[in-house]
Amino acid sequence: MSAAPFRVGLLGHGTVGSAFERLLEERADAIAVATGRRPEVTGVLTRSRGSFDEIVASADAIVELIGGIEPAREYALRTLEAGKPLVTANKQLLSQHGDELFAAARANGSQLRYEAAVAGVVPVIRVMRESFAGAHIEKVHGIVNGTTNFILTEMARTGASYADVLRRAQDLGYAEADPTEDVNGKDAAAKMAILARLAFHAAVSLDNVPFEGIEEITADDIDYAKEFGLVLKLLGVAERRNGGVSVRVFPAFLYGGHPLASVGGPFNAVTLESQAITEVTLSGPGAGGPQTASAVLGDVVSVMSSPGMELDPIEQPQFLPEDQVESAFYLHLEVEDRPGVLAQVAHVLGDKGVSVKSVVQKGIGENARLVMVMHPVAEGSFRSALDEISKLDLMRAPPRAIRVIEEEFQG
Amino acid sequence: MSAAPFRVGLLGHGTVGSAFERLLEERADAIAVATGRRPEVTGVLTRSRGSFDEIVASADAIVELIGGIEPAREYALRTLEAGKPLVTANKQLLSQHGDELFAAARANGSQLRYEAAVAGVVPVIRVMRESFAGAHIEKVHGIVNGTTNFILTEMARTGASYADVLRRAQDLGYAEADPTEDVNGKDAAAKMAILARLAFHAAVSLDNVPFEGIEEITADDIDYAKEFGLVLKLLGVAERRNGGVSVRVFPAFLYGGHPLASVGGPFNAVTLESQAITEVTLSGPGAGGPQTASAVLGDVVSVMSSPGMELDPIEQPQFLPEDQVESAFYLHLEVEDRPGVLAQVAHVLGDKGVSVKSVVQKGIGENARLVMVMHPVAEGSFRSALDEISKLDLMRAPPRAIRVIEEEFQG
Repeated sequence: MSAAPFRVGLLGHGTVGSAFERLLEERADAIAVATGRRPEVTGVLTRSRGSFDEIVASADAIVELIGGIEPAREYALRTLEAGKPLVTANKQLLSQHGDELFAAARANGSQLRYEAAVAGVVPVIRVMRESFAGAHIEKVHGIVNGTTNFILTEMARTGASYADVLRRAQDLGYAEADPTEDVNGKDAAAKMAILARLAFHAAVSLDNVPFEGIEEITADDIDYAKEFGLVLKLLGVAERRNGGVSVRVFPAFLYGGHPLASVGGPFNAVTLESQAITEVTLSGPGAGGPQTASAVLGDVVSVMSSPGMELDPIEQPQFLPEDQVESAFYLHLEVEDRPGVLAQVAHVLGDKGVSVKSVVQKGIGENARLVMVMHPVAEGSFRSALDEISKLDLMRAPPRAIRVIEEEFQG
Repeated sequence: MSAAPFRVGLLGHGTVGSAFERLLEERADAIAVATGRRPEVTGVLTRSRGSFDEIVASADAIVELIGGIEPAREYALRTLEAGKPLVTANKQLLSQHGDELFAAARANGSQLRYEAAVAGVVPVIRVMRESFAGAHIEKVHGIVNGTTNFILTEMARTGASYADVLRRAQDLGYAEADPTEDVNGKDAAAKMAILARLAFHAAVSLDNVPFEGIEEITADDIDYAKEFGLVLKLLGVAERRNGGVSVRVFPAFLYGGHPLASVGGPFNAVTLESQAITEVTLSGPGAGGPQTASAVLGDVVSVMSSPGMELDPIEQPQFLPEDQVESAFYLHLEVEDRPGVLAQVAHVLGDKGVSVKSVVQKGIGENARLVMVMHPVAEGSFRSALDEISKLDLMRAPPRAIRVIEEEFQG
C-alpha cells in the first residue's frame, strides 16, 4: 500500500489507551485494505511524555482517552479548532461541555465522534446519527450503566442485599473501588445527556438531567414486585413530551415481557422510538477496555472513510418539570395491622387523583404492609399524596415508591 | 438553501416506493439542514411510466424498489456501471446476484447500499460495515423473518396449530397470501446470505445456504420443550467454523434466558459476535412499508453525506458440509408403551456417539412417547442414529428432531 499512512495522535495511555493501540496495530492491515490508508499511532501523550502541540500538528486525527475534564477539555478544543477530527470516549467532557465542543466542531468543520462514550460497544450514536437521520426520534430509553444492572440482576437472582451484591460486583471487577457515580445514577445521567442532545438536536447537559440511584433499593421491594411480574432496572429516559423535553434517570420496574426486562448482568441496551421506525433496541456488553477500544477504532475508521461530517444545529429545549411528567408507581407501605388501613390510604390517593391498579396486603402484626401499583399520574400529584400518607398515624416507616414503566410493547 | 437539490431516481412505486416518496418529502427540510442539500424525487419508473435511461442520466442516486430479479437486476447493474450510487431493498437480487452487483460497484467506484434488504429497520448492515469495521466477526445469528416469528410466538402463547396460526397471521397482515418463502425458510436464507457475505467478506449466495422451515412444527413439540425451559425460533446462523464457513436457517430451541428467546411477535433481532466486541444484539420490527422506507431513506442520507464507499474484497469461502457441523438436538419419539424401550433407543444413540442430556417419558398406551434433549454432536452422527431409530419396531411414527442452541450467554 503506497498511500500515506493515516496518522493517529493518542492522548492518554491507560487501560483503554493501550488496548486501543494494540487493537489498531492488529487491525491496521485490514483497515488499509478497506480504506486505502494504513492507520498508525504516530504520537502518544501521557502525563510524563509527549508534546500536545507536536502531536496535533502532525496527526490526521486525535483520539482522546485521558478522561475527566481538564486537560482533556483544552486538548479537545484545540484539536477541533485546528480543524482536526477528534474521537473521544469521554462522557464527562461531552455531557458537561457539549455546547462548547460541538460549537467548536461546527465552526471549524471538524469531525467530533464519540461512540465509545455511551453504552460501550453498542453502536447507538452511529445508529442515531446515520440510520435514523431520516426519522424524528420521539424517545430514547434504556440501561446505560452496566454496574447497576449487574447489581440489580444479582439482587433479584440471589435475594442478597444491595451492600453484599455491591461487594461481589467490586470483587468481579463490575464495580469500581469508588462506585459512587455508578450507583447514584450520575454516570447514566451523563450518558443520557449525550444521547438526548443527539436525538433531539437540543442543548442538553448533565445539569438538565435529574437522576436517582439504586442505593436505597431493598431486596424485599425486588421480591414483592415479582408478584406483580415486575423486574427492576436503572433506566435512563429521554423523551419529547408536551412540546418540551424530559431527560431523567431513575430505578423503575418493568413488566417481564418488556424488551429491556431480559437485559441482565453487566449488559447495556438502548431503545430508540420514532413513528417511522416504531422501535429499535441495541444491546451488548457495557464498557470494558477492549469494548471501548473497539468502539473508538470504529470511529477512527469512520473518520478515515468520510472526509466531513455535518453536525445538526442545536436548539435550546424546554425542559419539562418533573412534577408534570406522568409516571406509574409501585408503593410499599409498612402499616399498622388493623382494619380500615387500606381504606385510609385509598382515601388519600383518591383525593390526589391517584388511581390504584393493584394492591396486595402482606404479613401480619409488625410485618404488615401494603404493596400497591398505581396507574400513571402526574408525579407532582403522586408526591403530594405520598406526603399525606407519610403523616398518617398508621404508618410504621417512611413509604417507599419506585416508578413502573407501563408502556405497551409487542413480543 | 441555495445548493443544488439531491436528485433521487425512484424505480418502483408500490407500497414501499410510495411510502419512501412520502417520507422523503416529509423529511427533506431536516435532511437539507443536516447535509446541505435537499433531496427530491426527480424521476419515477413504473411498469407504465418513465424511462430508465432518462432517470439515471439526471439522478444523483437511484433507489430500486421494484423487487424480484428482472428487470431490477438490469437496472441495478446499469446504475452501478454509470458510476451512480444505488440504494436497494431487494434481498432476492442481492442474495442471488451479489457477486455481479458488488463487482460492478467495485469496478465503477459506485456506492451500493442495502440496509432495507435485511431485518427491516434494524440497522445491522450499517453496524457491521462501519462500527465493526475494526472487528473480526466470528458469528452472525438471529431472527430475520417476522412472519415465522409471529407464528411461533402465537403457537407457544395459544397452543393453537400451525395451520390455525398461519391463517390468523394472514388475517392480521403478518403473513402474505402465499407465505411459502417465509415459512419454508427461503426468505431468511436470502437474508443470511447477504449478512454472511458482509460479515466474512466471502462470496455467499442463496445457493450456499441450506434452509429448513417451520411447516412441520407441531404445537405439542413446542409444549413439551417448555418443560426443558426451551422456546422455539426460526434461526439464521452464519459462523466461521474449522477454517470454513457455515450459513444455515433452521428452527431451533433456545433456553429461556437466551437474548433471542424474548424476541417475540413479528420482531427481528440479529446478534453479532467477535472477540473484540463480545456480542451486540440489534432488534426491532421486521419489514413493513414505513419501516423499509425509513431504512431506505437512511441509506440515501448516507449516500448524500459520503462521497465514496470502499467495498471489501470478497473471497471464495470453504463451506462446511452440514454433517460436520455440531448441534444439540431435541428428539420426540412416539414409542410402544412397554419396558425396555428407553434402553433400546439409548443403545442406538450410544453406538453413534450421541449423548443424552435429559429425557422425559410421557403418556401411556397409544400416547406413549420419549422426549429427549441431546448434547452437541456432529449432525452426521445424529442423522445416522435417527435412521437407525426410525427402523426400530418400537416406533409408532417417524421421529421428530429439532436443533437446540446450547450456547452460553450472560444476562
